[in-house]
Amino acid sequence: MNLGRVTGCLWASAKHPSLMGAKLLIVSLADQSGHFSSQYEVAYDTVDAGVGDIVITVRGSSSKMTPATEKATIDCAIVGVVDHVQR
Amino acid sequence: MNLGRVTGCLWASAKHPSLMGAKLLIVSLADQSGHFSSQYEVAYDTVDAGVGDIVITVRGSSSKMTPATEKATIDCAIVGVVDHVQR
Amino acid sequence: MNLGRVTGCLWASAKHPSLMGAKLLIVSLADQSGHFSSQYEVAYDTVDAGVGDIVITVRGSSSKMTPATEKATIDCAIVGVVDHVQR
Amino acid sequence: MNLGRVTGCLWASAKHPSLMGAKLLIVSLADQSGHFSSQYEVAYDTVDAGVGDIVITVRGSSSKMTPATEKATIDCAIVGVVDHVQR
Amino acid sequence: MNLGRVTGCLWASAKHPSLMGAKLLIVSLADQSGHFSSQYEVAYDTVDAGVGDIVITVRGSSSKMTPATEKATIDCAIVGVVDHVQR
Repeated sequence: MNLGRVTGCLWASAKHPSLMGAKLLIVSLADQSGHFSSQYEVAYDTVDAGVGDIVITVRGSSSKMTPATEKATIDCAIVGVVDHVQR
Repeated sequence: MNLGRVTGCLWASAKHPSLMGAKLLIVSLADQSGHFSSQYEVAYDTVDAGVGDIVITVRGSSSKMTPATEKATIDCAIVGVVDHVQR
Repeated sequence: MNLGRVTGCLWASAKHPSLMGAKLLIVSLADQSGHFSSQYEVAYDTVDAGVGDIVITVRGSSSKMTPATEKATIDCAIVGVVDHVQR
Repeated sequence: MNLGRVTGCLWASAKHPSLMGAKLLIVSLADQSGHFSSQYEVAYDTVDAGVGDIVITVRGSSSKMTPATEKATIDCAIVGVVDHVQR
Repeated sequence: MNLGRVTGCLWASAKHPSLMGAKLLIVSLADQSGHFSSQYEVAYDTVDAGVGDIVITVRGSSSKMTPATEKATIDCAIVGVVDHVQR
């Protein structure tokens, strides 16, 4: 999994039926020092995250491990909001 | 998922039977600022996207989560056309 | 999926039984402008491609979506020979 | 799989139910010479690793191959603590 | 798949039960010209490879396509020893 910060969201009128009602957020990925890089993911939100939150993202088939996402055409999901990182 | 812009399409006469009739588009991937990079994907179109559209692409096994693609030998699909991105 | 050019082939006497008889080709991956980079894949050929052909490669579990490859230990397959790319 | 060193841990109060009770560690990935890079993974610990340990991480669907993780929304797990590497 | 050279092996006393008895090798990945890069994989050996051998590695779920590895927590396996590469 990776750490990132929610920086925005997006709207798409034409989309695959499995994504109807999906909340898709843009997540800037963080490097090892906690700085945010130019890399990002569009992620399906499963934990009611908001802009500015530091989140845990999961990629690949595991992003479909929830009842809400099991039939969705997604490859990345937000699965936690981070309170504290100890390095 | 990633954001990208449809920049072209391709024709392949010799292809795997599972791809017969498939509409394969070339998508330039966008970086965090919305600029398009030299990275690209060849993606199966599931939402009738056109050249110039800003789209959402999904990779891996999720690209096969539709009736049309479940038996196709693909690893990337276009699953939405983006109206607006708020950063 | 990605675009690449077949640049060679390889022989392996000791290999996993699931790869017996497999035709494994070396594919140089192309960048967005169609130039070939130093990146490559070793790919299982499903469409009788030859050296010099511009091909479509698919990665991951989708490379096993054919009767010939469903039990093979592969993660990349050639699934089309490209006639024309319009950018 | 990759080699890395456990450098920290994280706390997340809001998280997906499948991650309740999960021990999530931050692992700095090592390069070929054994030096630790700026790349990292957030990994689910299956072997009771601690900060400073050199560990083996596995990514993707294999991280869910244990009874404890089979329904967890994870894409990386720690599956071994390394005693010695011979190069 | 990728080409690489076996450069070492590793010992791990604490590891996931599914890896008991597993022979884990370190493989330096080769670039297009056959030079070995700083990138590597820790790979499960299925073909009795030795240090110095040029091998084919497979990543992801395909590395679990053998009776010996189907329940193992691995994401990379050695599936062939290369005799000759023609470029």
